[in-house]
Amino acid sequence: MDTWMRLMADDGSIVFGRVEDGYLHEYEGLDQAVPTGAVLSLRTLAPLAPCAPGKVVALWNNFHALALKLEKAVPEHPLFLIKPAQSVIGSGMPIRRPAHYAGKIVFEGELGIVIGKRCRNASLAEAEDAIFGYTIVNDVTAAGLLAENPHFPQWCRAKGFDTFCCLGPAIVSGFDWRSARVVTRLDGVERQNYPLDDMVFTPAQQVSLISQDLTLEPGDVIACGTSLGVGSIGDGATVEVCIEGIGTLSNALGSRPDGDAHDPAGAGRERQSATVA
Amino acid sequence: MDTWMRLMADDGSIVFGRVEDGYLHEYEGLDQAVPTGAVLSLRTLAPLAPCAPGKVVALWNNFHALALKLEKAVPEHPLFLIKPAQSVIGSGMPIRRPAHYAGKIVFEGELGIVIGKRCRNASLAEAEDAIFGYTIVNDVTAAGLLAENPHFPQWCRAKGFDTFCCLGPAIVSGFDWRSARVVTRLDGVERQNYPLDDMVFTPAQQVSLISQDLTLEPGDVIACGTSLGVGSIGDGATVEVCIEGIGTLSNALGSRPDGDAHDPAGAGRERQSATVA
Repeated sequence: MDTWMRLMADDGSIVFGRVEDGYLHEYEGLDQAVPTGAVLSLRTLAPLAPCAPGKVVALWNNFHALALKLEKAVPEHPLFLIKPAQSVIGSGMPIRRPAHYAGKIVFEGELGIVIGKRCRNASLAEAEDAIFGYTIVNDVTAAGLLAENPHFPQWCRAKGFDTFCCLGPAIVSGFDWRSARVVTRLDGVERQNYPLDDMVFTPAQQVSLISQDLTLEPGDVIACGTSLGVGSIGDGATVEVCIEGIGTLSNALGSRPDGDAHDPAGAGRERQSATVA
Repeated sequence: MDTWMRLMADDGSIVFGRVEDGYLHEYEGLDQAVPTGAVLSLRTLAPLAPCAPGKVVALWNNFHALALKLEKAVPEHPLFLIKPAQSVIGSGMPIRRPAHYAGKIVFEGELGIVIGKRCRNASLAEAEDAIFGYTIVNDVTAAGLLAENPHFPQWCRAKGFDTFCCLGPAIVSGFDWRSARVVTRLDGVERQNYPLDDMVFTPAQQVSLISQDLTLEPGDVIACGTSLGVGSIGDGATVEVCIEGIGTLSNALGSRPDGDAHDPAGAGRERQSATVA
């Protein structure tokens, strides 16, 4: 297992690499496992989202326990929507309430698959090989919009707002997801605690099946879907999603409405918290 | 009115610029209206999709005539899904039938709005100013997948396949969409012919409202939705979408199933047809 992070130096430059003993060993990038030779102290760097996906493919109804609770059949193919690149923020960055939306905003703690190489029509083995590693996702949703229009469920809109895809704090390669659990805490109170081996489509199955539809690029993320226990985030509340072995993804719902300019993929300058297990 | 194209030189380099009398006057890019001074003959260049969007926001039910036919109320906010960057191809490139889908594939001729500058929470005036120009979209859809799952309409999947977003042949800035019509021909037979002034949300309203949700970046495209007359494309059939003043977007549904590697944003080397009005 290796832990990978993406961070910003004081001069605004972005570095990516393997984290060891408080130092970042810089690499060319996700898709080029070539060390640059540079070794930087994490203390001088501000954590960002651990990758900058061109798109995030987010699954719905991918856990047996949730399907049972929703009384829906388990799907025969991954059911997904697309969250845009601009929705991604890193751990510690604020989720922003859309200026014109006063309704319910919910958290969904999830495992995230990070793609390491372009794949299309991938076999299961090719799919497994195309997975760079795993991260944590909070698939934030403006729940009040999903059914606002009776004829068109607004999945992309409800889940696609800027800052509604919290990613991080790190990517762990060689991570054994089968024995891991997703634990979500709202202001410190546990709200989700579910086993990843309850997944309907395994990560390799997701990558293989989705790659039959659309080309997955290095850095793209598949959010594996959530299970029981999703709930509403009050303004100012903090959501922590923890997967032992990856770390804790922590984001608060900013109390003031969304307003100022946005930094794609969490390239913001504000220092971010990142607890790496 | 100026006409803009994106093309590939024989050495594989991509150029963007203003087209005049068979020549391309190269510019730095969509978001930097700076001529490089280079002037190239179109005869030496292969047309590509006129921009390389990071995302395509595709509207549903945005024409009064279609809403009436569908017996659906006109929406109060643009209803949209997201088509990924990898779905984009240029005029003349083949639409590829997904390997594992034998069902109905339909054409939807549409106006495309090309974003020229990053915008977020844009006023109507800012939105108008953020529109670089207009292009033509064939919003290809695997219709059989939309309702395949009874609990989750698969809009992103049905419209998100590689090659399912035909764009081009050109972008026209200063284009008067209000007086224009979209004409779609299937193997030369007219199937759609509708006026753009029947739109529910005008382009500026679309950009302004959608920018309240998610940040629009230069090169992003909003597909304005289609109206009456959409239909099925037989394998091998050619769809031409024509908007007088912009040109004709022509794409055939490849008869052999989707297989080989994909060139994002139509950066393929095969020479493409591009009829610019």
